[in-house]
Amino acid sequence: MRLHPVILAGGRGERFWPLSRRARPKQLLPLLSDRPMIADTLARLTPLAKPADAWVITARDLEPAIRAAVPDVPARQVIGEPTGKNTAPAVALAAWWLRGAGPDAVAAVLPSDHRIEPADALRRDLEEAAGVALERRAIVVLGIPPTHPETGYGYIETGELAAPGSRARRVAAFREKPDRDTAARYVTAGHLWNAGMFLFSPEVMLEEIRVHAPEIGAALEGLPDPAAPDLERALERYYAAVPSISIDYAVMERTRNALVLPARFGWDDLGSWAALAGSDRNQAGNTVRGRALLEDVAGSVVFAEDGLVAALGVRDLVIVRTGDVTLVCPRERAQEVRALVERARKEPDASKLL
Amino acid sequence: MRLHPVILAGGRGERFWPLSRRARPKQLLPLLSDRPMIADTLARLTPLAKPADAWVITARDLEPAIRAAVPDVPARQVIGEPTGKNTAPAVALAAWWLRGAGPDAVAAVLPSDHRIEPADALRRDLEEAAGVALERRAIVVLGIPPTHPETGYGYIETGELAAPGSRARRVAAFREKPDRDTAARYVTAGHLWNAGMFLFSPEVMLEEIRVHAPEIGAALEGLPDPAAPDLERALERYYAAVPSISIDYAVMERTRNALVLPARFGWDDLGSWAALAGSDRNQAGNTVRGRALLEDVAGSVVFAEDGLVAALGVRDLVIVRTGDVTLVCPRERAQEVRALVERARKEPDASKLL
Repeated sequence: MRLHPVILAGGRGERFWPLSRRARPKQLLPLLSDRPMIADTLARLTPLAKPADAWVITARDLEPAIRAAVPDVPARQVIGEPTGKNTAPAVALAAWWLRGAGPDAVAAVLPSDHRIEPADALRRDLEEAAGVALERRAIVVLGIPPTHPETGYGYIETGELAAPGSRARRVAAFREKPDRDTAARYVTAGHLWNAGMFLFSPEVMLEEIRVHAPEIGAALEGLPDPAAPDLERALERYYAAVPSISIDYAVMERTRNALVLPARFGWDDLGSWAALAGSDRNQAGNTVRGRALLEDVAGSVVFAEDGLVAALGVRDLVIVRTGDVTLVCPRERAQEVRALVERARKEPDASKLL
Repeated sequence: MRLHPVILAGGRGERFWPLSRRARPKQLLPLLSDRPMIADTLARLTPLAKPADAWVITARDLEPAIRAAVPDVPARQVIGEPTGKNTAPAVALAAWWLRGAGPDAVAAVLPSDHRIEPADALRRDLEEAAGVALERRAIVVLGIPPTHPETGYGYIETGELAAPGSRARRVAAFREKPDRDTAARYVTAGHLWNAGMFLFSPEVMLEEIRVHAPEIGAALEGLPDPAAPDLERALERYYAAVPSISIDYAVMERTRNALVLPARFGWDDLGSWAALAGSDRNQAGNTVRGRALLEDVAGSVVFAEDGLVAALGVRDLVIVRTGDVTLVCPRERAQEVRALVERARKEPDASKLL
């Protein structure tokens, strides 16, 4: 088995503003270590998968920054989309270019900006899922056992075991983000979170795309090799031809060929500054990155990208300092930062800082 | 009557850190308007006193910055002390150099970094106090009617009227900073706050100094004109010779020649960031200087010297952003910033930012 990571890195997260900006989205931020999250994402796969085998799909304007962040991924395997068309066209592209990679090739579609630990548990699950994907010629989704009735994620309803003795099960149904009561029922019923992580043999995925998303399947046919000199224009034609649709909606929810493997690693999509509170807390339950001078501060996330953050007598705050902006808000309202950024867009003074 | 303001500007306030630094103390900060507080202090005196008649006593290393802040004060009337020796030697110096200013000259010793409003009420009181000082050949202190039993100020116990029909009274006693109960008694008894503002004819002050602080009186005798080429060394000798002592302790508490005039202006010594909360509040009771993006923020002091402060869902905080530091603390703990600075001195990383 040879694993080919396909990292989706086209996001434009605003929830980590002011650290995240249009030209520096979450996957490029050093949120969990001193390097960009996408670099952590690839490092976590070693030695199971080599960077030389990885593909990264991002936005065209982010291409240079992404290449710099993951220098071990061959430049021609970092693909800049001329327009964002959701995940299906990106996954199809990777499947297309991996179609000749040999009978033991398995693609693993992975987000670029989530927290996953421990890394060895992830690698064990990926290896197991890849084995199942090859053996059963299936698309194998990693399902995360929920820790609480989250309304912000999709759920996977599991069916019977894929085979006697296997941990994988059939996918009975994908369930959209639920309301609170429904989420509670899902958790009780043993549904799993859909974290957007799935593995497949490239030919299997291509076949599914041809059946369930024929427009994308047709558009793929004209595409040259990624090293071709006219790749840029070919990509423009491809992205102009395909619909904007998620891989979940285009393929996963329609195929009868999906299995789910319950994950045995810890996972968090790091949806806001508040989510950092879980990582390397110090004694007072603070999570600190950069230079900070704290006196009687507890339960807070302090991130100084630039200069010093000095705080005194505060609780459960997010304090972020960049070269041009300081953000202060309660941890429990960190998800509203997005709305603040929206508002800032309309203010000529602040809009330069987005 | 010709008023000569004597502005004491040698302070090294740490309470407005991170905006205040060793080389940029409170009197040089634009806390209440867009110009340094010392410039506001002089502007407030116009047209009663002219900058050309003003003297400013500061620390030697602050001299260039102070001159730049009050360019209308003649350079030779901005005196840099080689060492800080409290207020008595500084006041004595001003009295000495003003001794030949004519029979109608009155010196008004004023702090450089307090909030006083309205300015015309201040000027009326200064004019009245100057008249009393000349007429009675007395030192006239402006006493502030207390608004609360403050333990951080000295109090003035008032005696009988200086003359029938006068508003000035004899000073019965100067009282040191009291404890809370004593402060409450002082307020009930009608004692006034000592804000360090007093007026006198230069000869009267020199006489008092010769009597009550003879070491200072003797050291003055050798001093040349402030325009003398060897002034710097003469000042060094003077400051080496005099004791470190406040004018209150050296003269005011000992003389029987002090009168007090109750002030009719609003006064605040701006002891910490919290004190700014009183100035130009906007609708939600916030006081904002610089660029700010506030959502559901109330009762807060937001000061962005550099960049933008974005805040969401916080109450009664002080948030200060400078080019290299962000400070966050509750308004009611702003006085503890000083202790934080003390602590920072010991941390190699932070000590550069003091």
